[in-house]
Amino acid sequence: MWMVVEGRRPSGRSRGGAGNRPPWRGRYPGGVTFPVVGMVGGGQLARMTHEAGIPLGIRFKLLSDTPQDSAAQVVSDVVVGDYRDLDTLREFARGCDVITFDHEHVPTEHLRALEADGIPVRPGPDALVHAQDKGVMRAKLDAIGVPCPRHRIVSDPQDVAAFAAEGDGFPVVLKTVRGGYDGKGVWVVDSVEEAADPFKAGVPVLAEEKVDFLRELAANVVRSPHGQAVAYPVVESRQVGGVCDTVIAPAPGLDEDLAVRASEMALNIAKELGVVGHLAVELFQTRDGRILVNELAMRPHNSGHWSMDGAVTSQFANHVRAVLDLPLGDPRPRAPWTVMVNVLGGDYPDMYSAYLHCMARDPQLKIHMYGKDVKPGRKVGHVNTYGDDLDDVLERASHAAGYLRGTITE
Amino acid sequence: MWMVVEGRRPSGRSRGGAGNRPPWRGRYPGGVTFPVVGMVGGGQLARMTHEAGIPLGIRFKLLSDTPQDSAAQVVSDVVVGDYRDLDTLREFARGCDVITFDHEHVPTEHLRALEADGIPVRPGPDALVHAQDKGVMRAKLDAIGVPCPRHRIVSDPQDVAAFAAEGDGFPVVLKTVRGGYDGKGVWVVDSVEEAADPFKAGVPVLAEEKVDFLRELAANVVRSPHGQAVAYPVVESRQVGGVCDTVIAPAPGLDEDLAVRASEMALNIAKELGVVGHLAVELFQTRDGRILVNELAMRPHNSGHWSMDGAVTSQFANHVRAVLDLPLGDPRPRAPWTVMVNVLGGDYPDMYSAYLHCMARDPQLKIHMYGKDVKPGRKVGHVNTYGDDLDDVLERASHAAGYLRGTITE
Repeated sequence: MWMVVEGRRPSGRSRGGAGNRPPWRGRYPGGVTFPVVGMVGGGQLARMTHEAGIPLGIRFKLLSDTPQDSAAQVVSDVVVGDYRDLDTLREFARGCDVITFDHEHVPTEHLRALEADGIPVRPGPDALVHAQDKGVMRAKLDAIGVPCPRHRIVSDPQDVAAFAAEGDGFPVVLKTVRGGYDGKGVWVVDSVEEAADPFKAGVPVLAEEKVDFLRELAANVVRSPHGQAVAYPVVESRQVGGVCDTVIAPAPGLDEDLAVRASEMALNIAKELGVVGHLAVELFQTRDGRILVNELAMRPHNSGHWSMDGAVTSQFANHVRAVLDLPLGDPRPRAPWTVMVNVLGGDYPDMYSAYLHCMARDPQLKIHMYGKDVKPGRKVGHVNTYGDDLDDVLERASHAAGYLRGTITE
Repeated sequence: MWMVVEGRRPSGRSRGGAGNRPPWRGRYPGGVTFPVVGMVGGGQLARMTHEAGIPLGIRFKLLSDTPQDSAAQVVSDVVVGDYRDLDTLREFARGCDVITFDHEHVPTEHLRALEADGIPVRPGPDALVHAQDKGVMRAKLDAIGVPCPRHRIVSDPQDVAAFAAEGDGFPVVLKTVRGGYDGKGVWVVDSVEEAADPFKAGVPVLAEEKVDFLRELAANVVRSPHGQAVAYPVVESRQVGGVCDTVIAPAPGLDEDLAVRASEMALNIAKELGVVGHLAVELFQTRDGRILVNELAMRPHNSGHWSMDGAVTSQFANHVRAVLDLPLGDPRPRAPWTVMVNVLGGDYPDMYSAYLHCMARDPQLKIHMYGKDVKPGRKVGHVNTYGDDLDDVLERASHAAGYLRGTITE
């Protein structure tokens, strides 16, 4: 099960029929008509989306905070500006046929304003809010019957203590409902005393049970406005210090029924929330055989980077196809095993010189660097390896990432 | 046999040792040091080279004739100027760590001037002249014992008649020694009367026997300054009207000994001519079992486009690695069969609307469009398909290319 279609897909057989084509405003000289995809945010996700868009011949336009951002270094059409400013967004959107996102930080009211201006925003604000606000996300998942960790919005440390008492007690996980990522805005507290910090920011706080999980999984799906959706193989995501370190596709030893349940859950969430584009559903696999939703991301996601070299169609290519309402590409793997390991910044600023060793050691290695300054712990790239033997594929990816970071020196 | 190494390869194990690293001038903010690759020419080869360079984190700088050229549409750092003007080339080269090419038209003396300025030019002028001047190429291949069609520089129609008489008579192939490509600058003449046209341009003319070939092959290799070289599988190239139409990788039914001979021939030519980067050796397979060199190209080549989706490392990625003197990537195929079919311009200017049908029909299809105006017969893109069954792979690629062009409507 890798592709589902709700309702009718466009036949696509009439050439240039108005019924099949939005009135694209993007123009090439000579009358060739290709759309302009506008992406808000200049990070590595936009960089890799541009890379995936080039073969499609589409125009890619970027709204970037600075000219040095990861994507701004490689994109021809860059607007430097603040995505929190509606006028800037409106000016940027004027030349675009569709707007999509490198991150989830654009204010919901701005997205509604763009939609009111007639600009297709994909994913739309009504969907994206579930990736922006963990409280809204939990409430919606409860409403559609998707299993989540026990949770409740809490107002103060005593409220946290009460929440703990209702379950197995401390530890309890506290999250600010907005703005958290990669472990930021997340606390694991063992007592009412420790529960004070999260409330200092003055934002609503979500309390969740600390799930005793076997491992973390991710179910990545892509959905188009017409309701076509594809599901990538469910992957295992290994975190270090709250940051994704290694992704293995497919998740080793995952029970087939559980894998299908996870994919169906992700496809159902995408449909119920009206997601357009890529949806990453981060999951806990519990020791008692349940899968619980941890987080949602509505954009290409770190847990899908393996697909750049490991799948027939990458998450980035399918995200572009989805926001343009084009038929989606085959998400199935090209090799029995694909492993992605993130390259984090270490003490060694110059990673280029490490290419000599990494490339000479493994001619099949796939390096993806983001052009970002090296700062300790910062994601500055990733490597992909694939093959028939998981141990070998894991070793090659881990060695390359470690050598690039500088933690491995031979 | 897919990788050979002449002499010593850099160990690559010392990190940042001067011995292993040229003094790259490219700089990212924050002290991360990546090279700047300057490419002369804004065509689709530069566009796809940029696409391949993005994951490596390198800086890509383009010298383009116009801001609308295929590559200029997607590259951030573009200089618009005339490659025939030395001052323009010098100004462009100032910010580059190495210069390479989308085409072979840069005057040899300009390349020598850049080298005299201390700019690495890859391939260098002494190698590139063999791809610029068919007379020089034939003389060199004769000197190193590479089999070619019978040939001679001719000065007038009577001389052509004499050349014909020395062999099997007419027809004879006449080529201007410089400036011909895709069938341009090439004549097949059946009589001394027909032999007048080629001499009107006033450029030297090369006469060649018209080879009675079974099919055309291409042996693609990539060589680095250190003498590491990799060989892609020998492919079959099917021409229509002198223009490449279909490439099948590997060449179906090709005798293993002949394939090895062709690869060794290409590797030997790359070494003897001092090629750095991608070298395409276009070959005739004769009915009596010989392989003769037709043309040479020292840049990524149409006969290597299949490698973007069909090989572990694409010709573009390996060309970038070669000109930067990085260890080369594995050129071996990822599927039993990969087929590339060029998308030529037809009567229908808008190819984007055809995406709906092509993508819905074949979710595994790989489309590569160049952002070029559609003109009848012009190469505006290509499609790749791969799989286990050659007939199926051929049908899928041919259908998609025909539908995009408009010659197939269902």
